[in-house]
Amino acid sequence: MTVHIDINCDLGESFGAYTIGNDEEVMKYITSANIACGFHAGDPNTMHATIDLASQHNVAIGAHPGLPDLNGFGRREMNLTQREIYDLMVYQIGALQGFLKAAGVPLHHVKPHGALYNMAANNEAAAEAIARAVAAVSPEAILYGLSGSALIHAGESQGLLTASEVFADRTYESDLSLTPRNQRGAVIQDYNLVITQVMNMVNDGTVRTGIQQETPILAETICIHGDHEQSLAFVKRMSNDLKLKGISVTKAGDFIHRMY
Amino acid sequence: MTVHIDINCDLGESFGAYTIGNDEEVMKYITSANIACGFHAGDPNTMHATIDLASQHNVAIGAHPGLPDLNGFGRREMNLTQREIYDLMVYQIGALQGFLKAAGVPLHHVKPHGALYNMAANNEAAAEAIARAVAAVSPEAILYGLSGSALIHAGESQGLLTASEVFADRTYESDLSLTPRNQRGAVIQDYNLVITQVMNMVNDGTVRTGIQQETPILAETICIHGDHEQSLAFVKRMSNDLKLKGISVTKAGDFIHRMY
Amino acid sequence: MTVHIDINCDLGESFGAYTIGNDEEVMKYITSANIACGFHAGDPNTMHATIDLASQHNVAIGAHPGLPDLNGFGRREMNLTQREIYDLMVYQIGALQGFLKAAGVPLHHVKPHGALYNMAANNEAAAEAIARAVAAVSPEAILYGLSGSALIHAGESQGLLTASEVFADRTYESDLSLTPRNQRGAVIQDYNLVITQVMNMVNDGTVRTGIQQETPILAETICIHGDHEQSLAFVKRMSNDLKLKGISVTKAGDFIHRMY
Amino acid sequence: MTVHIDINCDLGESFGAYTIGNDEEVMKYITSANIACGFHAGDPNTMHATIDLASQHNVAIGAHPGLPDLNGFGRREMNLTQREIYDLMVYQIGALQGFLKAAGVPLHHVKPHGALYNMAANNEAAAEAIARAVAAVSPEAILYGLSGSALIHAGESQGLLTASEVFADRTYESDLSLTPRNQRGAVIQDYNLVITQVMNMVNDGTVRTGIQQETPILAETICIHGDHEQSLAFVKRMSNDLKLKGISVTKAGDFIHRMY
Repeated sequence: MTVHIDINCDLGESFGAYTIGNDEEVMKYITSANIACGFHAGDPNTMHATIDLASQHNVAIGAHPGLPDLNGFGRREMNLTQREIYDLMVYQIGALQGFLKAAGVPLHHVKPHGALYNMAANNEAAAEAIARAVAAVSPEAILYGLSGSALIHAGESQGLLTASEVFADRTYESDLSLTPRNQRGAVIQDYNLVITQVMNMVNDGTVRTGIQQETPILAETICIHGDHEQSLAFVKRMSNDLKLKGISVTKAGDFIHRMY
Repeated sequence: MTVHIDINCDLGESFGAYTIGNDEEVMKYITSANIACGFHAGDPNTMHATIDLASQHNVAIGAHPGLPDLNGFGRREMNLTQREIYDLMVYQIGALQGFLKAAGVPLHHVKPHGALYNMAANNEAAAEAIARAVAAVSPEAILYGLSGSALIHAGESQGLLTASEVFADRTYESDLSLTPRNQRGAVIQDYNLVITQVMNMVNDGTVRTGIQQETPILAETICIHGDHEQSLAFVKRMSNDLKLKGISVTKAGDFIHRMY
Repeated sequence: MTVHIDINCDLGESFGAYTIGNDEEVMKYITSANIACGFHAGDPNTMHATIDLASQHNVAIGAHPGLPDLNGFGRREMNLTQREIYDLMVYQIGALQGFLKAAGVPLHHVKPHGALYNMAANNEAAAEAIARAVAAVSPEAILYGLSGSALIHAGESQGLLTASEVFADRTYESDLSLTPRNQRGAVIQDYNLVITQVMNMVNDGTVRTGIQQETPILAETICIHGDHEQSLAFVKRMSNDLKLKGISVTKAGDFIHRMY
Repeated sequence: MTVHIDINCDLGESFGAYTIGNDEEVMKYITSANIACGFHAGDPNTMHATIDLASQHNVAIGAHPGLPDLNGFGRREMNLTQREIYDLMVYQIGALQGFLKAAGVPLHHVKPHGALYNMAANNEAAAEAIARAVAAVSPEAILYGLSGSALIHAGESQGLLTASEVFADRTYESDLSLTPRNQRGAVIQDYNLVITQVMNMVNDGTVRTGIQQETPILAETICIHGDHEQSLAFVKRMSNDLKLKGISVTKAGDFIHRMY
């Protein structure tokens, strides 16, 4: 039986005269793109251009809505009501769908960005607002969330397809939260350890949390960053290695389906 | 043969703690609502609430995209490329469509706001960008534009349904442009003169421009403002008078159809 | 010995086409105005006009900086670093000082707005960042903060003059925090109880917290809201009553001085 | 008699997570820095950091206010009133002065950015609003404007010190406007021609406009861009060559003084 994995990356994060990322190169090695929707990053022109680029590379397109905080790049938590979260999700997904409609390309998935992603992982009220918004505006889209998080559960409760996301180069706690970046060993530097962790997650459905502790984890999509030379080389290598080991590297929609 | 007319109004212009307009009252007397989409006015929560309100009153809903200038309320002309205009239209229409999808309500029309409306009336490149955006993202929507303007022509060129808009209380020049507000007599104050102008436009398809000069004009939708007590009373009276005179006051989509 | 009290109000909260407040009327009954600086409310034109208005009424002018969240009116807490808080304070105070320089009027005080005010009351790191910013950019200005709060202590640590703020119509907990608005009895509706609380705070330096519990409190400035008809009548009456009872109602700078 | 010239560059144009420019390198070769003030580029943290950097390199600091259009980087002309221009100038200059006060560094000059600079060159009403704002909020600052432009004249009318700006690698029309970029030969590519033009402007006070036509021009400050590797090398070389030829390369304030 074939094992599948999706590789996703945040793209379309430029804004006006400001460029972030190396979208043209990254597109070559990923299977799904999370496109910023104008609140934390991105602007109408960038969204349009990024959708064109993804289409050219046959990369599946997802909405990547964030908090309304361009200056903080959506990384600063804000104290929002459920209604505020629901509405900013609907607005941003809808805006991206406008460009998708114009391009004749379907919306493949939705993944919240930055602080909104983190809020959705821990906070059930935030997770529910996000899942309800996706169910209301794009019920066919796959909801991406941290594997084992409140967002995945909320998506399932709303009847959505979900993709459980894992991180290749981050270590995990026993509750499947990521080791905070300010702690020692939070980021795995050695590529051999990274690919071992990825293979364990993808093939065996486990991740090592603490010493010798194997914890079950569902890995359906891997989040990568491709904005540095090093990370780009890393993605290229990981993608190749996964394929060499017989893993099917393909967009989530190719292997996550409704059962009925 | 029944004569039809639509009455439209800009609504959903509040922003966060800031309230503009008297949307609850105005909804009672109009047939189509132009809802601000977050660039010159409106925000996700306001858009959501205004769509709910319009639906309750059975008022047809249109997108009302504007320039990205909240501080200037979209009234300050900006020097934009066609691509910039196209993309800000797609973004804002899409965002509104997100809420419409969630509410299960169709998009009835699109009308650009303020300086964008004026640019679309005179400037063929701007008009084309707007019409192409509507055709790409919401080809079933009716494009509202100043009667006789470049926008109406651009909409027709793109194969869109269009609604030619007239103003009840503004005087016209012989080229069907509105007399600039800073000129004497630009605004008609006397209700009897207003209703006479409206009846002439709706029933006879003419407007008086200059002394005794009857100029042909197509009147399919009347733009009204309802944010002041006086204007609200005015709309109520005009709507009643039109009905008493046998005019069918109804949304543009009820009488503007594809012929094939 | 004369007892003094300042009455302050948030003003200049309009933004472009959006009007909030009844600044012209409120100016008649207050002694110091907190002018929004463009992040949570206000814009350059509004700041200019509000300074002119305050000057005409001989009302002392303060900067009222807020979080960069116009849509949330600065009321939604954001997770900011000390450096981010410091810099947004310096920026906004400086911007207001630009208009004060142009008008030839001094900066009298600084009071953070909304969520920033609340963060400054409880959070020592936020309070320190705010106080350091005021000390750096406007060391002669009086720092307004909740009586007994971290912000007042931080201001004193930075060598600033401070004015301890009390609320006329809010009840207090025994630690001098305000009873949260969602609790019963948080807001005092009866004017007689309000003026009694104010007189006790101003004359005796105490406030009743819980049943019969008199807690010491320093009252140097009273925060009022004047945007509703009722609140305006309320301010007018309170100001008159205070004067009738022999209290000197005057700007904080008239009675808060450096001792050396 | 020594001939002086200032070399200025736009800096502090980063915004949040977005980086523009190579400020650390450019600072080594310029004598005055135009720091973005948050409307078209820059944010409070960037302004603070850029002022620190300029101070370390002993570079004179100027305010670089722009139109309120971050997405367009202040390059899209907007139809603003004189009052709107005046107030956005005061606001942004004041904000920068807040950081200068905190750093204990004086404001050396003011130079409008992008579309605002162009409007100030041609449009007397815009030029007057800008000059009046500078006179009101920072009368000691030197106003930088295109040599021979309406802005320089407006500055003189307001009693300001002015610095006439020239461009090293752009060709000129006979009215001293720059040849539009979309015309052939608008940009001089050959370094030898560039340094010849600069030396003629600085030493002889002339520029060649059209074939063999020497037109008088006042050159007090040269605008350079340093965000590309090539432009950085260019600046370094030009600065060295000017010094080798005996020109005093120094901030405008060192040689532009009040005469009384």
